[in-house]
Amino acid sequence: MNKESDSYSDINQEIVMTYKQHSMELIDGKKTAAIIKEEIAEQVIKIKSEGGKMPNLAVIIVGDDGASATYVAAKIKACEKVGFISTDIKLPDSITEYELLEEIDKLNNNDEVDGFIVQLPLPKHISEHKVIEAIDPKKDVDGFHPVNVGRMAIGLPSYVSATPAGIIELLQRYNIQTEGKNCVVLGRSNIVGTPVSILLSRKSETGNATVTLCHSRTKNIKEICKQADILIAAIGQEEFVTGDMVKKGAVVIDVGIHRVKSDKTKSGWKLIGDVNFDEVAPKCSFITPVPGGVGPMTIVSLLQNTLLAAQKKVY
Amino acid sequence: MNKESDSYSDINQEIVMTYKQHSMELIDGKKTAAIIKEEIAEQVIKIKSEGGKMPNLAVIIVGDDGASATYVAAKIKACEKVGFISTDIKLPDSITEYELLEEIDKLNNNDEVDGFIVQLPLPKHISEHKVIEAIDPKKDVDGFHPVNVGRMAIGLPSYVSATPAGIIELLQRYNIQTEGKNCVVLGRSNIVGTPVSILLSRKSETGNATVTLCHSRTKNIKEICKQADILIAAIGQEEFVTGDMVKKGAVVIDVGIHRVKSDKTKSGWKLIGDVNFDEVAPKCSFITPVPGGVGPMTIVSLLQNTLLAAQKKVY
Repeated sequence: MNKESDSYSDINQEIVMTYKQHSMELIDGKKTAAIIKEEIAEQVIKIKSEGGKMPNLAVIIVGDDGASATYVAAKIKACEKVGFISTDIKLPDSITEYELLEEIDKLNNNDEVDGFIVQLPLPKHISEHKVIEAIDPKKDVDGFHPVNVGRMAIGLPSYVSATPAGIIELLQRYNIQTEGKNCVVLGRSNIVGTPVSILLSRKSETGNATVTLCHSRTKNIKEICKQADILIAAIGQEEFVTGDMVKKGAVVIDVGIHRVKSDKTKSGWKLIGDVNFDEVAPKCSFITPVPGGVGPMTIVSLLQNTLLAAQKKVY
Repeated sequence: MNKESDSYSDINQEIVMTYKQHSMELIDGKKTAAIIKEEIAEQVIKIKSEGGKMPNLAVIIVGDDGASATYVAAKIKACEKVGFISTDIKLPDSITEYELLEEIDKLNNNDEVDGFIVQLPLPKHISEHKVIEAIDPKKDVDGFHPVNVGRMAIGLPSYVSATPAGIIELLQRYNIQTEGKNCVVLGRSNIVGTPVSILLSRKSETGNATVTLCHSRTKNIKEICKQADILIAAIGQEEFVTGDMVKKGAVVIDVGIHRVKSDKTKSGWKLIGDVNFDEVAPKCSFITPVPGGVGPMTIVSLLQNTLLAAQKKVY
């Protein structure tokens, strides 16, 4: 009897799982990023065939932080793959703020370079804000300059920073309607939460959502999340969003990425997000996994901005 | 019997009204504006006594729109009252965009002028965006330049535009806590709804609220409003907010101003807001009237920004 009921239970479980798999779609950031890279590569070939100038990105990296070096290498590699010209400019940790600002000025005035970024974080003796504000907004393909943030806020053409742009692109590519939807954004950072909350509320095809921006001081966060048709988790806390915080049929975008110990992987660690995937996924209509969701889209956004810069489509 | 019950009902009514009057406080924008103007005037006297330079505001007005002329005259008068130097620069309707940009360039390079504004709207043949972006952000005391909007969004010092700044100032002066409060903003305009929604969600003394930005595409607007601890109505529709949309004890800020016919006034018209005051006021802990609420604060914000510009406290 026990065995039989176990087997019934297994069948039941399987049916439930099948149902869940059918009703929930994984948003594949890796695949989407690959498709967009191909599209960009095709455009570059077209530009070349018409005798145009190849898009040219420069990346400044200060010091020898390992993680920064990895990110920059990935950006340079992605540029090469789509046919862009790219240069990494390595500057020593000991560089003064003034010297760095001079380097930025050179790139501002270098007509060969369409866009450039300064890899963050910077050494403590250098003001990140001063550096960001020194970049010519027309070449600010990271979209961090106040001019680009401000233009985005008032609905003018601008370079949008990588993560918010990647999120919007994923929603578009998966035909997820935002108009009139209740959208909850967790986290108010300058590079993710705040800009994505602004973008989604703009009067635009990929906006028109009713957006609530939540953060560390929000009191009734569970309640608010439960009302979300689209939930964007960028709060920087491991598996903060649990199953009981999500409405059935919601779209969940997980921006978090945390490296945690695991006894189930060979390496001894694994990557998790701001969302408890196992609990939340079965309730969703769409969800991004971690890794392979929003992450791969960020480099693509940088490539898109560089292409826009080369084509002078923003300014 | 009927008379008696009528008289009971009257007494009852009176008790209810007394209770309501005690629990609801009117936010007096006119009085607050007058107090702040006095504070500014005192600061100007202090600057003068220390041999400093008087704050200097220039106002460009293009064409002869009656309403614009009235606004500009009020601004110039307010400047004079607090001891600022002010100039209005009247330009003809026929001015070209290029000529206007040249005028702006002159003011950008005029060391005497601390801040200046270009009164909107402009004639149709002139791009407002181009004009706004031509103003040196350091002198943009209207706070419309993307640099100022962007800096506000990322929490850097900036000139905040008049109405959002006035709203924040009123909340502060009436000791209305925003931290952790559910705040609903109705309307996503570039000069009111969007910036005030950003300001209230920033990590700051006058921010830290959980903000929901609603607009024409919002579906469940009544429900959302009912959850607001602080409701800011800037949707541009006469008496849009009705009694059933407001939670008991809410703070209601009415940004709307509409001139409507009235058979109760001598002039034959009266001013009303985006809020149905008679229905909503009895439910509120605080409410701004129309007129005399947010309106009088806007000129004060312009004076405050000009003082900041003269003192070089933003840039």
